[in-house]
Amino acid sequence: MKLKKRISKSIVFLMLLSAVLACNKTTKNTNDDVKNESSHPSLILTTKGVKDIRAQLGNIPIFDSSLKAVQEEIDAEIAAGIEVPIPKDYSGGYTHVRHKRNWVVLQKAGVLYQILDDEKYAKYVKDMLMQYEAIYKTLPLHPKTRSYARGKLFWQCLNDSNWLVYVSQAYDCIYNYLSEEERNKLETNLFRPFADHISIDSPQFYQRVHNHSTWGNAAVGMIGLVMNDQELIDRALYGIKGKEMDKTAKDDDGGFINKDGKAGFLANIEEPFSPDGYYNEGPYYQRYAMYPFLVFAEGLHNVKPDLKIFDYKEGVLLKSINALLNLSDADGDFFPLNDGQKGMSYYNSALVTAVDISYHYGEQNPGLLSIAKQQNKVLLDDSGLAVALGIKNGLAKPFDKKSINLSDGPKGKQGGVGILRNEDMELVFKYASQGSSHGHYDKLSYSLYEKGEEVLQDYGLSRFVNIEQKGGGNYLKENKTWAKQTIAHNTVTQNETSHYNGKYEIGSQNHPTLHYFSSDNNNVKVASSKVTKTYPGTDMHRTIAVIKDEDFEKPYVLDIMKVTSATVNQYDFPYYYFGQVLQTNFKYKTPQTLKTLGTKNGYQHLYVEGTANANSDNSKFSWFNNNKFYTLTTVTNNKDELLFTRIGANDPEFNLRRDPALMLRRKNAKNTSFVSVIEAHGSYSPVSESAFNSNSSIKELKVVLDTENYTAIKITNVNGNSKLFITANKNASKKAKHTLKINNKNYEWSGSYYFN
Amino acid sequence: MKLKKRISKSIVFLMLLSAVLACNKTTKNTNDDVKNESSHPSLILTTKGVKDIRAQLGNIPIFDSSLKAVQEEIDAEIAAGIEVPIPKDYSGGYTHVRHKRNWVVLQKAGVLYQILDDEKYAKYVKDMLMQYEAIYKTLPLHPKTRSYARGKLFWQCLNDSNWLVYVSQAYDCIYNYLSEEERNKLETNLFRPFADHISIDSPQFYQRVHNHSTWGNAAVGMIGLVMNDQELIDRALYGIKGKEMDKTAKDDDGGFINKDGKAGFLANIEEPFSPDGYYNEGPYYQRYAMYPFLVFAEGLHNVKPDLKIFDYKEGVLLKSINALLNLSDADGDFFPLNDGQKGMSYYNSALVTAVDISYHYGEQNPGLLSIAKQQNKVLLDDSGLAVALGIKNGLAKPFDKKSINLSDGPKGKQGGVGILRNEDMELVFKYASQGSSHGHYDKLSYSLYEKGEEVLQDYGLSRFVNIEQKGGGNYLKENKTWAKQTIAHNTVTQNETSHYNGKYEIGSQNHPTLHYFSSDNNNVKVASSKVTKTYPGTDMHRTIAVIKDEDFEKPYVLDIMKVTSATVNQYDFPYYYFGQVLQTNFKYKTPQTLKTLGTKNGYQHLYVEGTANANSDNSKFSWFNNNKFYTLTTVTNNKDELLFTRIGANDPEFNLRRDPALMLRRKNAKNTSFVSVIEAHGSYSPVSESAFNSNSSIKELKVVLDTENYTAIKITNVNGNSKLFITANKNASKKAKHTLKINNKNYEWSGSYYFN
Repeated sequence: MKLKKRISKSIVFLMLLSAVLACNKTTKNTNDDVKNESSHPSLILTTKGVKDIRAQLGNIPIFDSSLKAVQEEIDAEIAAGIEVPIPKDYSGGYTHVRHKRNWVVLQKAGVLYQILDDEKYAKYVKDMLMQYEAIYKTLPLHPKTRSYARGKLFWQCLNDSNWLVYVSQAYDCIYNYLSEEERNKLETNLFRPFADHISIDSPQFYQRVHNHSTWGNAAVGMIGLVMNDQELIDRALYGIKGKEMDKTAKDDDGGFINKDGKAGFLANIEEPFSPDGYYNEGPYYQRYAMYPFLVFAEGLHNVKPDLKIFDYKEGVLLKSINALLNLSDADGDFFPLNDGQKGMSYYNSALVTAVDISYHYGEQNPGLLSIAKQQNKVLLDDSGLAVALGIKNGLAKPFDKKSINLSDGPKGKQGGVGILRNEDMELVFKYASQGSSHGHYDKLSYSLYEKGEEVLQDYGLSRFVNIEQKGGGNYLKENKTWAKQTIAHNTVTQNETSHYNGKYEIGSQNHPTLHYFSSDNNNVKVASSKVTKTYPGTDMHRTIAVIKDEDFEKPYVLDIMKVTSATVNQYDFPYYYFGQVLQTNFKYKTPQTLKTLGTKNGYQHLYVEGTANANSDNSKFSWFNNNKFYTLTTVTNNKDELLFTRIGANDPEFNLRRDPALMLRRKNAKNTSFVSVIEAHGSYSPVSESAFNSNSSIKELKVVLDTENYTAIKITNVNGNSKLFITANKNASKKAKHTLKINNKNYEWSGSYYFN
Repeated sequence: MKLKKRISKSIVFLMLLSAVLACNKTTKNTNDDVKNESSHPSLILTTKGVKDIRAQLGNIPIFDSSLKAVQEEIDAEIAAGIEVPIPKDYSGGYTHVRHKRNWVVLQKAGVLYQILDDEKYAKYVKDMLMQYEAIYKTLPLHPKTRSYARGKLFWQCLNDSNWLVYVSQAYDCIYNYLSEEERNKLETNLFRPFADHISIDSPQFYQRVHNHSTWGNAAVGMIGLVMNDQELIDRALYGIKGKEMDKTAKDDDGGFINKDGKAGFLANIEEPFSPDGYYNEGPYYQRYAMYPFLVFAEGLHNVKPDLKIFDYKEGVLLKSINALLNLSDADGDFFPLNDGQKGMSYYNSALVTAVDISYHYGEQNPGLLSIAKQQNKVLLDDSGLAVALGIKNGLAKPFDKKSINLSDGPKGKQGGVGILRNEDMELVFKYASQGSSHGHYDKLSYSLYEKGEEVLQDYGLSRFVNIEQKGGGNYLKENKTWAKQTIAHNTVTQNETSHYNGKYEIGSQNHPTLHYFSSDNNNVKVASSKVTKTYPGTDMHRTIAVIKDEDFEKPYVLDIMKVTSATVNQYDFPYYYFGQVLQTNFKYKTPQTLKTLGTKNGYQHLYVEGTANANSDNSKFSWFNNNKFYTLTTVTNNKDELLFTRIGANDPEFNLRRDPALMLRRKNAKNTSFVSVIEAHGSYSPVSESAFNSNSSIKELKVVLDTENYTAIKITNVNGNSKLFITANKNASKKAKHTLKINNKNYEWSGSYYFN
């Protein structure tokens, strides 16, 4: 009965999919009790896929070159010999690096065995697995104690799970090469206890919604699929059966282990992804989590097609790849939101997986092929073959990144990230929710890029990932004391205290909301968001527009931050620029000795390099970086202070970068608005030594109206031309009609904003 | 008689040169008194050259594309209309930029008229020249008063001279297009008074040996050649007849105006160039001076071939181009010795001139064609045609930069610059003389590069050339108080005082001497130099080797600085690294507030960010920059101090970069040696997040012998292998034989050093 149902389901499924896919699954799934040798490989590579690949070899340039590179890499490893050391080190240390290398090597050697049909690769995988089998059965917990969930091969279960995700694939590839006795030995002494250690023995790691758990779930599920072990597969999909977690416990990073009691792979898809595919921890961690999501999904798709995993939650897995690609700058580097390390990009191998899978199992978006071309490698599997053929057949088109709004939260109701793109300028407006344990206290902050270069930075994390000399390559103390704090971001800090008082419990229960996002107009891109409860009694509303205006060389940023408070406060508003101070229209003093700006909440890390009082209605600051010019024009009153700061105080191990900021400080204010324009302008050639357009084009920036309902800003160019931008602070729907009298002139429009 | 002699000389000359060149000069030179219309253009373009170019047009890709770019540029200018504003601004200001632009446009429009034979270009040049003529005759001195020699179009005569060097060429190109009346008008009201202003009226600018004067000489000479005015030509070649200068007067930069009474173009070739072609102010100013040297030489070659200007001083002009190209890093950026602005490179248009002229009038070195290909443009003249044809015919070969020693001083006896190249490492050892008024007090300093990236920097100048907002684009106060000071460089400062007490009079009378330079051995490149009198009673001797050893991933730097003094002193030895502190083997403290290291001689600009006492025989410091690792291992004693410093104190206008250094401080020492190794090692990928070879390979660095005659250093690798480097401190000739017993072992070798 069960058997028949499966067959018919599979047949329907096959009719819906392209012929390339998974056609030997029926055999596999009809045979739950007997291990059927003909059903391997079935996880990522499939027997049909292998056949197709072999038939095309030599005629698919990017696949052939990817294969050649892998072959050279693995042949060198085989020549160097197998090393399976007794685990000892933290990240970056010898045993860590070696075991990490081994998982890569095993996976690739398995693939080579299938594609090249050369036994030496199978033997190599078998020999190394047997060495793991030999040590694993008596291996104690890893000797390093820092992790909340210690592994056996690595200091944290997370890395053990990484290992198993890759090694499951290797095992699948050489499954038929092994004798049943050998398989039993490996499964009994290595794979099964390994899967149990990272799940049953480590529920604080496994039984939660978190990128760590995703790796754990995938690891258990993938080895379960290869071993055809339904218990492991169910444990992967739904969590450890019957396991209840302490809902108040926290992990190393301060995040709750399992507040809601949810667990398993499906819950890990459900919770962190918004319907738009935004991953709540941000792109850096999405990139990290992506691989287990996709590779396990691919395995499920191949072995358990009736699950329709790629359709789960309206196809969110494939949507998330599109979101992730859009969360990269012009060079493909991911925006370092939350704990993100700069430099991570879509050249990461997880993104090769993502792009290839998205192309193959999605809608064959030709834009993905152009990214695959840039990546210059493909997966050595069915999806990589599809991409290689697409490129070979000239189907690639540019991947066009446009302005995009990505909602956050499982149902898309917990804020989001808006990316405003206008010519070479990219502005990333972060109004997302807390972002799990890797989130920063940076509500309504933004960072600005020009052609992939940072103009106003997000500091990112304070960590040197896998560089052992810097705190074992792990998070540094300064990640909490500096990088997560509000003052480290381009947003408002009230009374030298971080948003939500820097408390995760509060932060994770609140989030900003979208007021409006508008990208229909080619010249004007706007995002607007409100947040309450970042500070008790204080509400913030930020509207940011990136505007292309004929009177300006490049699109400029108009930034309106409206703060409403029941109390009198000090507001600090930093701009983390890069490079050299060029010019100011205010007089500043520089101190003889450098002292810190404050004592806590990140302020202890800032030196004060200069102080000034604003002495005109517009304070202007120009700077020079990477041979380009920038100017901030901000509306000030004569009580405002301006501070030049530099990061690096109270940094006893030189963990922080010495980056500068200009900070606007407004004391004794209740309700107030910060209105600024950032211009990118001109250029300098050190070769011809000529400066072009090195001065601001703004003559005056003026708030002509600022009420509960509307804020209107007049921007006057040096040539005398003026533009008016009015944003609706309340009813801002697309269809809303507005009539407003300013200085005896009537303005009528419909929609979120007015600009003319 | 004179006539006949000239003809016969010219005939001999023609037989020696290729047919492309200057074949209408005989006509020209037979006719001193009558302006012969057929003899124009003759200065840079020649009538013969124009004919050849027209014949090849459309078949010489790089020439055709250069021509197209110029045509588009000039057509846009013509469409925009002529602007000749009344002079008013400093560098970077509107009138400055406009007049500067005009000289470029005039020169190019003139060339287009010749090559394209289109009258619109000639008319444009004529119209603009007439506008200059109209304002020049009543123009007072430029209103800005900062220069020691004010121009009329510009705030300094230097820029007026730039203008005339270019505009002479434009005038030559449209000479025949103009009526005699028009020519008389221009010559009488514009060119002749212009030439007189920058020479007779400004002898403090014109009558000296200095790059400023070279421009002045060339300007006067080139207009003289076009006007066929022998008086101007002689004034250009030999200076203002009978003009005696005050030998003690100084210019704005603190340099003597004319200490030796020499003047004129030939003296300006004689004095600043060493026989190797090193220009005493360094490559940045050589690049600047190069254009007038070469373009006037080209003009002289064409119009006055009997002068044999390219043979002058054994062909030093062409040799200097080779020297200059060798003074660039792997990216073609010039090493910023003395007052050099970083980023200036052989992509500068002066270097297009230099490369094309060097190829055409030199020995057709195919390496120059590869640089011309990188430059991707050629001169629109005879030499550009030759280069374009060379490239078209596939003659280009890589320009192979090797280790090279360039002597300094008119006779090559005043020190020099040694460039040690070994795989991707480049070390620039500066033991040159003072370098005229743009020199720094940095005897025996060095900077280090890896693949064109700075590892240990030379700060360069403190100036933002042509960026008006920063001090009008001129030298900033900090150039004297910081950039020129010894402590700003990677060399020894004694008692917090700069070399030669920071006095130009003393510095310019002294210089280091070469001890030896050795680059024959593929694996070991060594330079050694001694200097006395940098401090009274103190001698310094530095030997630097860049060594490729099989036990190390990349070539490392061995640095031996031997200081001998009659008195007890404090020695400071900074390393201006970039990036992040990775690891030290000494414990350091970081202060709560940052204070300056000292009060003068550059020390007032340094903050102290950390302090330590050396606590082992080797102090080690690793850092991380641009995803690469570096380690300094230096021999220390337990009285040595180590300081982390950062530039930026007492910098009231944020003119200085906030760059870090590690400084070794040795107090109460007389004779002492500083011995260090700098390793570049490993790499980090932020995409794969993997660190490779992030640790130093040195176990121990030991001074095993240090006498008046020899210094011997043992370098022991982490794998236990040792190498010994012995340098001969006295007799270091190639043929010298040495026998030396160290720890009962005999070492015998011949030559400057021993390494095994």
